[in-house]
Parts: sequence; structure tokens; C-alpha cells
Amino acid sequence: MLKSEAYKKFKKFLFNGELRPGQMFSQRELCEIIGISIAPLRDALHEIQNEGLIELIPNRGVKIILVNDKFVIESFQIRKFLEVGALREIIKKKIPDVFIEIKQEMNDIKKSSEVCIDSQLLKRALEIDEFFHKNLISNLNNSLLLNLHEKVYDRVKLIKKNIRYTSERLVPAMNEHIKIIEDMNGGQKDNSILSLELHLRIAENNFLIGDQEL
Amino acid sequence: MLKSEAYKKFKKFLFNGELRPGQMFSQRELCEIIGISIAPLRDALHEIQNEGLIELIPNRGVKIILVNDKFVIESFQIRKFLEVGALREIIKKKIPDVFIEIKQEMNDIKKSSEVCIDSQLLKRALEIDEFFHKNLISNLNNSLLLNLHEKVYDRVKLIKKNIRYTSERLVPAMNEHIKIIEDMNGGQKDNSILSLELHLRIAENNFLIGDQEL
Repeated sequence: MLKSEAYKKFKKFLFNGELRPGQMFSQRELCEIIGISIAPLRDALHEIQNEGLIELIPNRGVKIILVNDKFVIESFQIRKFLEVGALREIIKKKIPDVFIEIKQEMNDIKKSSEVCIDSQLLKRALEIDEFFHKNLISNLNNSLLLNLHEKVYDRVKLIKKNIRYTSERLVPAMNEHIKIIEDMNGGQKDNSILSLELHLRIAENNFLIGDQEL
Repeated sequence: MLKSEAYKKFKKFLFNGELRPGQMFSQRELCEIIGISIAPLRDALHEIQNEGLIELIPNRGVKIILVNDKFVIESFQIRKFLEVGALREIIKKKIPDVFIEIKQEMNDIKKSSEVCIDSQLLKRALEIDEFFHKNLISNLNNSLLLNLHEKVYDRVKLIKKNIRYTSERLVPAMNEHIKIIEDMNGGQKDNSILSLELHLRIAENNFLIGDQEL
């Protein structure tokens, strides 16, 4: 098995919640849990440590990073820099049609939420959420930027996994996204940027308040 | 020798210009040039490839990335997002005194330039330039942000190494920096951000024009 496969498998277990923040494992335990051999695991762990998702503690093992206030604040600060920067660039050029479809899906989710908010709908909401934010970045066709945002977004995924995306947040979050898109399409450049900043601040605050649950 | 030492040594040779953009080396050749053994080199090369500074080409060797227009544009786009974002945060809080000393050094360099612009003075100018831009980031005490900016700044260092920081650029660059700091200290928030954006745009354009030289 290659390092890149070990890397992907480790992340899958991390985002599935099978490896939880703050937990400590020996490399041997990790091999068993994930079902991979030690050499590719070791290579992958070095890269994942560079991304700040684990700590390698000599003679003890692997500690999954704790999702605490510092982790949330640092992640959201960078996320804001990259996404707000990207939105400014997108507005300077022209608005790509892809956001129209995203807005349609968000309105569909809102409509479905009037009937029942179940885990299926929450999953759809999380997916369109991720798709929207990653689209802001991928629109710029900058592979290094995409790579850095991916790393920051992995942290956001870890935060979301460990602090619930509650049903009360579903409709407001969709409305915030729709507002960003509408301001953008309506040529309200400054409003659109303020809307994105506000959306990220609300999300961050929700996660900070949720921190006690951990 | 550890991977981290191999990593540092490789970068030293890259930034010294001993490994030039576009060149191809076998891993054995690199070991000889840098004076390290193959195992730590191989580990380090994987990380350096992740940072986008080299390409590992199977059965052929290591290609130093070409510093072309795409490389410059992508690097400066991210640099702008991170540094402008950081400046906005710094202005929101309060201005740290450290920028006063930076401004003083920049004025000293300008005064010295009236006598003679030699390689010594250009070196001082490059150092204070790097110190100023890294200070914008380090002021926020966000270790992940510092890490990402370091990676982007490594690309900028490679660009600077291969496209000369000419003596004609010395005084204008110092003036642009001083303007950013003065706008910041004078409470001219928006002007300060515009000044930083303009400074980065001028620098980027200079590097793009310089591209033919490679």
C-alpha cells in the first residue's frame, strides 16, 4: 500500500469519528483499527502532523488533535482570509452560473425542512455547504490555493464532526448562503463580502459555544 | 541525518540558486550536491513536492519547478489573501510598535541609497522587506497561518532569487512599505489596505515582466 492510500484511509477514519479528538494511539493500534501496514502509515502520519491534525509523541504514539477554542479560531481566521479573498476576486471578474444551481439546491433544502428535518436532510445541507465554500475557491483555478484551502477545510470538517450541525442551524445557514449569492448576483459587492464574513462569524461562534460539549 | 535537516539543506541550496528552476537531477546527484544521504533526502523531497517547489518524476528524478507566469500569479494571489486579511485584523485591534522600528530601518536604507546602492544595501532591503511581510502574519499568533504563509513565502523567495531585485526598485519599494505603515498608524484603514494591495500588484507585475530573463 502506498503512503497516499494510508493518508486517505486515516482521514476517512478521522472524519467518520472513529478516531476522536484528544485520543492517543500507538502506531500498532492505528494499523489494526485502520487496516494498513506500518510503513505507509508512518509516512502518512508525518504529512498529517504537518497539517496540524495529529501530534506524534516520541515513544508514546499518535495523539489526535484536540478540537478546542484555539483550533476553531485559528482555522476560521485562515478560512476567512482565503474565502473572502476569493469572493473579492470572483466579484471583480464575473459571476459563474454554478452558484445559481447551488442556490436552487439550498432553496429545495429549505422547502424540505418545512416537512421534516431528518439526518438525510442534514447530510444534504452539509454537502451543499461544503460544495458552496469549496466552489468559491475552485473558481479561481489556483491549484496551490485549492490545496491550502483543502487543508483548512479538513480542520473545519473535524470541527463539524465533533460539534453537531444542529437542525436549528439548517435554515439560517441556508439563508446566509443564499444572501451571499443574491448580493453577489445583484452587484452588491460590499454587501456580499459582509454577508460572507457574517456567515463565517456566526458559524465560528456556534462552534465556540459548542466547545463545552467535548 | 534527519528528514528535517535534509529539508532545510535542500531549501538552502534552492534559495542560494545552486539548484535552478527547470533543472532536473537524479536523487543520487542531489545527494552529492547537497552532501546528504538518500533516505532523509527522499523523505524531504516528498514534503517539498507537496509544497509545489519540485516535481518527482518516476524513473527520471527531481525537477525543480519552473518559475513562470503561472507560478508568480498563483503565489501572489494567495500572498495577497493572507497578508491583506492579516492587515485588516491588525488594524481592527491596535498597531504594534514593531512597525515603527521597521519604518525607521526603511528610512535608513533610503538615506544610504542616496550615497550608493550596492549589493550590501540590496541585501538589507530584501531582509527588511521579508521581515515586514512576515511580521504582518506573525502578529496574529496563528501558528497554522504562519505555517501556510511560510510555504507561500518560500515560493516568493524562489521568484526573487531568479528575477533580480534591481536597484531601481529599492527606493520605490521602501516608499510603498512606509506608506502602508503610515496609513495604518494614521488610522487610514482603507488607504492602508489599498496601499498593501498596490504594493503587491507592483511587485507581481515586476516579476511578470522579468519572466523573459529566465
